[in-house]
Amino acid sequence: MVHGVIRSIAPDVGVVDICHEVPPYDVRAGSLTLVRAVQYLAPGVVLGVVDPGVATARRAVAVEVADGEAIFVGPDNGLLAPAVSMVGGAGRAVELTQVAYQLAAPGPTFAGRDIFAPAAAYLARGVDLAELGPPVDPLSLRPGLVPLPRAEGEALATEVLWVDRFGNVQLNVGPDEVDAMGERVTVRWAEEIRTANRVEAFEGIGPGQLGLIVDSYGLMALALDRASAGEELGLRAGDLVTLTPPGG
Amino acid sequence: MVHGVIRSIAPDVGVVDICHEVPPYDVRAGSLTLVRAVQYLAPGVVLGVVDPGVATARRAVAVEVADGEAIFVGPDNGLLAPAVSMVGGAGRAVELTQVAYQLAAPGPTFAGRDIFAPAAAYLARGVDLAELGPPVDPLSLRPGLVPLPRAEGEALATEVLWVDRFGNVQLNVGPDEVDAMGERVTVRWAEEIRTANRVEAFEGIGPGQLGLIVDSYGLMALALDRASAGEELGLRAGDLVTLTPPGG
Amino acid sequence: MVHGVIRSIAPDVGVVDICHEVPPYDVRAGSLTLVRAVQYLAPGVVLGVVDPGVATARRAVAVEVADGEAIFVGPDNGLLAPAVSMVGGAGRAVELTQVAYQLAAPGPTFAGRDIFAPAAAYLARGVDLAELGPPVDPLSLRPGLVPLPRAEGEALATEVLWVDRFGNVQLNVGPDEVDAMGERVTVRWAEEIRTANRVEAFEGIGPGQLGLIVDSYGLMALALDRASAGEELGLRAGDLVTLTPPGG
Repeated sequence: MVHGVIRSIAPDVGVVDICHEVPPYDVRAGSLTLVRAVQYLAPGVVLGVVDPGVATARRAVAVEVADGEAIFVGPDNGLLAPAVSMVGGAGRAVELTQVAYQLAAPGPTFAGRDIFAPAAAYLARGVDLAELGPPVDPLSLRPGLVPLPRAEGEALATEVLWVDRFGNVQLNVGPDEVDAMGERVTVRWAEEIRTANRVEAFEGIGPGQLGLIVDSYGLMALALDRASAGEELGLRAGDLVTLTPPGG
Repeated sequence: MVHGVIRSIAPDVGVVDICHEVPPYDVRAGSLTLVRAVQYLAPGVVLGVVDPGVATARRAVAVEVADGEAIFVGPDNGLLAPAVSMVGGAGRAVELTQVAYQLAAPGPTFAGRDIFAPAAAYLARGVDLAELGPPVDPLSLRPGLVPLPRAEGEALATEVLWVDRFGNVQLNVGPDEVDAMGERVTVRWAEEIRTANRVEAFEGIGPGQLGLIVDSYGLMALALDRASAGEELGLRAGDLVTLTPPGG
Repeated sequence: MVHGVIRSIAPDVGVVDICHEVPPYDVRAGSLTLVRAVQYLAPGVVLGVVDPGVATARRAVAVEVADGEAIFVGPDNGLLAPAVSMVGGAGRAVELTQVAYQLAAPGPTFAGRDIFAPAAAYLARGVDLAELGPPVDPLSLRPGLVPLPRAEGEALATEVLWVDRFGNVQLNVGPDEVDAMGERVTVRWAEEIRTANRVEAFEGIGPGQLGLIVDSYGLMALALDRASAGEELGLRAGDLVTLTPPGG
């Protein structure tokens, strides 16, 4: 339906689906999906709808990044914030209240269809941000939840950001913070403990071994060779994982 | 493959996927999917293929709506009928028998690929409906199955039309018929009984409570706050649900 | 992301997704997906990424078919070979080593995003194959795995190529090799034995019966009427199935 609404308003605009698999209500997963994709999108309008607070007080917003190359449209619930930061930070923002740029709903508003899709389509057609509603102070936009790793003595307390469809377990930490631990790292989560080998490629992991690899986003990931680390280790997004040097 | 066929015939035509998740053989679910989406589609050609009777006597048809803004292409098995009604009813119709507008199949015909996709592509390119086959009396088209709610004394016997991916249980009844029951409604299905509260928004439902809400299609839906009512209540499309005033 | 990368480089190029459901690491399934779709694609660039050997010695290649109508881009691991054969065989090929046509990766290369998508986009924009890297002898390209049926006396040892979403079990054998067995065929797999009826259409199968049908790709398939043969028989891609004449 969102595609249909966009084409009705802006028939010549190309639409790329970033992802259909964000779990319902999971703003954090939606937010990470946007962050992972945003640097690979062409200039244009980015529409994000993970919106458990629909019909509550959360604002509907459009946020133009500082260089004017991209406009993000969606709920002001932290969904858009990390992606906006990654491509330069918010320049201008408005609250989407101008009904001339909305659809009339047969029942309660379905914001994706009735507010966000039309706004994205009009913006893609060239309508200026300022026409869609009153300005919003970018500093008042709700920040995203970006969990940071935490040093605890020799250990590093990390969090699982994402388990991809291959089962690789992406952690919220880059190689710089893990390099000092050396070639083998002790990995603890829940009641479990395993040793992981730092490897350059999946092929370096070896049968039955756990690998710690820099993934294609530049972050550390726990991985197995052609099997799902997430499934075997029982790890999911949001789980806590502690890394320590061997013997630590 | 349908996309490929359409692009081969009509390279400049934009194609929007309405849904990939209609269960196999479920004409009713396909039909409801079209009804939900059709009012949000731009003018054009709508291709629907849920076709358990492929290779039987069911006709392959194209149906132009009365105002000429849309043409529906698919099997004459009731799949298209409710959507056609919703946007104005059938004007002209033809049976898709003209092989010049079909693909040759390597085995038995795969109607979606060999008949419906080429027909949709040629129509989108501007070929007139009449070229695709002999006219069909619109009155002879197979009607859709649209279940209506039934009053039983004070009670209203309804049917689950749809359980969406959030688990909201959409019933085949609008607010007008339920308003007289008041703020609390007794809900019965299978051997179960629960009380639902009429609410304006998901946030009004409250933990552990069952809500009865007007959904974004203007129909009544049973809902929980950020949880799946369909899963918790064990309700699926086609199930019968009786609504009564409290004490009824 | 692949869509985003392609649009950044070639904004006016239309992109069709063939399939998102190839199981992780399953080169054979990816290969069969391409073969099934390729004859229905318009002329253009075909991008395939099922790549368990990413970051190992497998080459990244682009292969132009003999008539110049299509270019295949992907890993040289057999994924592309059957589809390339089907549309005329390899004419020219290159190894994708020219970094000017690649993206810089934040971590290890994600070949789909950093090498294959940019290559496909530049080729679609009209860049000549020869600019993307040094020529590769088409005879050195890794062949695909295409299992052939094997006669064993009166019996025919076949393999399940595919179980589609309706549960039809496609075998790697056409009708010519099965016709001599007559109207009823004995089907053996694992410890199981059943009789299948040769039928023209799903409706000919009858309740509780197993049908053997020519599917829409011109291959033999085991099928039930409106139920999943794959599920009921416990058959999956790669399983061995022996066909014999009745009493054989």
